[in-house]
Amino acid sequence: MKMKDKIVVALGGNALGNSPEEQRALVKDTAKPIVDLIEAGHEVILAHGNGPQVGMINLAMSTAANTPAGTPEMPFPECGAMSQGYIGFHLQNAIREELLNRNMNIPVATVITQVIVDKNDSAFVNPTKPIGAFYSKEESDKMVSEKGYVMIEDSGRGYRRVVASPQPVDVAEKETVSALVEQGHVVITVGGGGIPVYREGNKLIGIPAVIDKDFASEKIAEILDADYLIILTAVEQVAINFGKPDEKWLSKMNLEDTEKYIAEGHFAPGSMLPKVQAALKFAKSKPGRKALITSLEKAKEGIEGSTGTLVVLD
Amino acid sequence: MKMKDKIVVALGGNALGNSPEEQRALVKDTAKPIVDLIEAGHEVILAHGNGPQVGMINLAMSTAANTPAGTPEMPFPECGAMSQGYIGFHLQNAIREELLNRNMNIPVATVITQVIVDKNDSAFVNPTKPIGAFYSKEESDKMVSEKGYVMIEDSGRGYRRVVASPQPVDVAEKETVSALVEQGHVVITVGGGGIPVYREGNKLIGIPAVIDKDFASEKIAEILDADYLIILTAVEQVAINFGKPDEKWLSKMNLEDTEKYIAEGHFAPGSMLPKVQAALKFAKSKPGRKALITSLEKAKEGIEGSTGTLVVLD
Repeated sequence: MKMKDKIVVALGGNALGNSPEEQRALVKDTAKPIVDLIEAGHEVILAHGNGPQVGMINLAMSTAANTPAGTPEMPFPECGAMSQGYIGFHLQNAIREELLNRNMNIPVATVITQVIVDKNDSAFVNPTKPIGAFYSKEESDKMVSEKGYVMIEDSGRGYRRVVASPQPVDVAEKETVSALVEQGHVVITVGGGGIPVYREGNKLIGIPAVIDKDFASEKIAEILDADYLIILTAVEQVAINFGKPDEKWLSKMNLEDTEKYIAEGHFAPGSMLPKVQAALKFAKSKPGRKALITSLEKAKEGIEGSTGTLVVLD
Repeated sequence: MKMKDKIVVALGGNALGNSPEEQRALVKDTAKPIVDLIEAGHEVILAHGNGPQVGMINLAMSTAANTPAGTPEMPFPECGAMSQGYIGFHLQNAIREELLNRNMNIPVATVITQVIVDKNDSAFVNPTKPIGAFYSKEESDKMVSEKGYVMIEDSGRGYRRVVASPQPVDVAEKETVSALVEQGHVVITVGGGGIPVYREGNKLIGIPAVIDKDFASEKIAEILDADYLIILTAVEQVAINFGKPDEKWLSKMNLEDTEKYIAEGHFAPGSMLPKVQAALKFAKSKPGRKALITSLEKAKEGIEGSTGTLVVLD
């Protein structure tokens, strides 16, 4: 039996709170199960979302730009880069501290990570991912004409900018992440799904988009030849018929089950669906690869096989 | 003759502009001389300032916090972490592109870097480094009483917050930076002098402070056992009697010269003085170590010995 697995853990941005104080408190809860996995002998790579955080940074920067302070407008990819620094700072410290509390002196670091997308990804034709604040019809029209933003009316609450959610193609800093993992460092990477960029010759150019952090995590897990992809969520297991009388919690889904459940519409788009899709993609990418969907608290038990939903080929 | 030197290059934050557009244009100019050094066979580690950038982020965050947008107040260390992501994103891409343009496929990465200071550093007794916006007397008094900030009247332009500028003691992510340098990666680190933190047991706690980027660069150069510390500035060489009739540009300063010139007050505090002090500290740290003060454009010629001011022991 192989004792040590290489595990990419994907943490949701919602688990990181809405302010620096909240985040500093919440990363302590995050650190414990992560360090449990490390203490059990696994190599851990941590990926995370940034929805609330990049939204906050983007809103603050665009708000301040329209005050007498007159700070510059900040493009969305740059806001993503800022969010990686902001979140990484807190995450790396919490993990470092938890490691030291258990007498493990293992370096932890955040790598500013760009994820390459295809400029011709069909997602760019019809952007669907709302970001930032709500605006009035007048403000919205002005943003469309002056900045070329795509705006949508969002659930009667006002108008919001929408950006595309393209598929990750590659990770620009993969050699760096890989080198650090090989040296035994704990690496925090593809924060917020990575800073979205596209290739143009030798250039990487930032593009306003949100790469789903589950798909970005799946991509880096493939690149690093990980054994496990753990996708953390609010629930311990995946359910079919969720919220209905015949609700059923699943401890395992194979290829056939998973494709069937997806086709039957059991999983909510933008919520459980991308997690299940990313898990399946990883399981299909190479024989022996396994994905686990569970809660942060149950991550270690899940890897030991006693809970969570395991997604495997058969 | 040893062909390959390990060189820490310290770049000023003022060389990075005041907006994302300016920065994106300016990093192209930065990348060329950096890649000249790499092409000449040297190992390069890039450190940089963040004065205008962290000021802008801090101002935007505190401005937006006091609007209906109601985004959270952002502590100064967190603003520093954001600035490392923002600046690193642009710098790493510009260097990557310049390397690829010359057919060099060398990984470039930014490591979110914390620099540890002593909480009892005497600098904390009397903070002197102004950050962020100017305020009225009334606003200033309110910030003193509500937030405990130290505020000073700045040159008749209003009141500003001041923070301490403590000495760097250690670099928290030194193992990570070192591992990447050994693997031949170009590393961007100690951005803005590093995120200032102090140790409390196993914790690292952010503290509002500005670590001089020249001293932080000197510290990481010592830790990495670099051969050279290049401190970039606006001028090609260091002068004594600067701006006077007997102004003299120097191609070399030994220990005795340097200490004498410092004592005679030739170098402006907050400008050339910390550069000369950091250069001298590095030259004194181990036999054979050399520091060079020159302009970005002349960095390669300086290393070749044809310009710049070399600071050495004798």
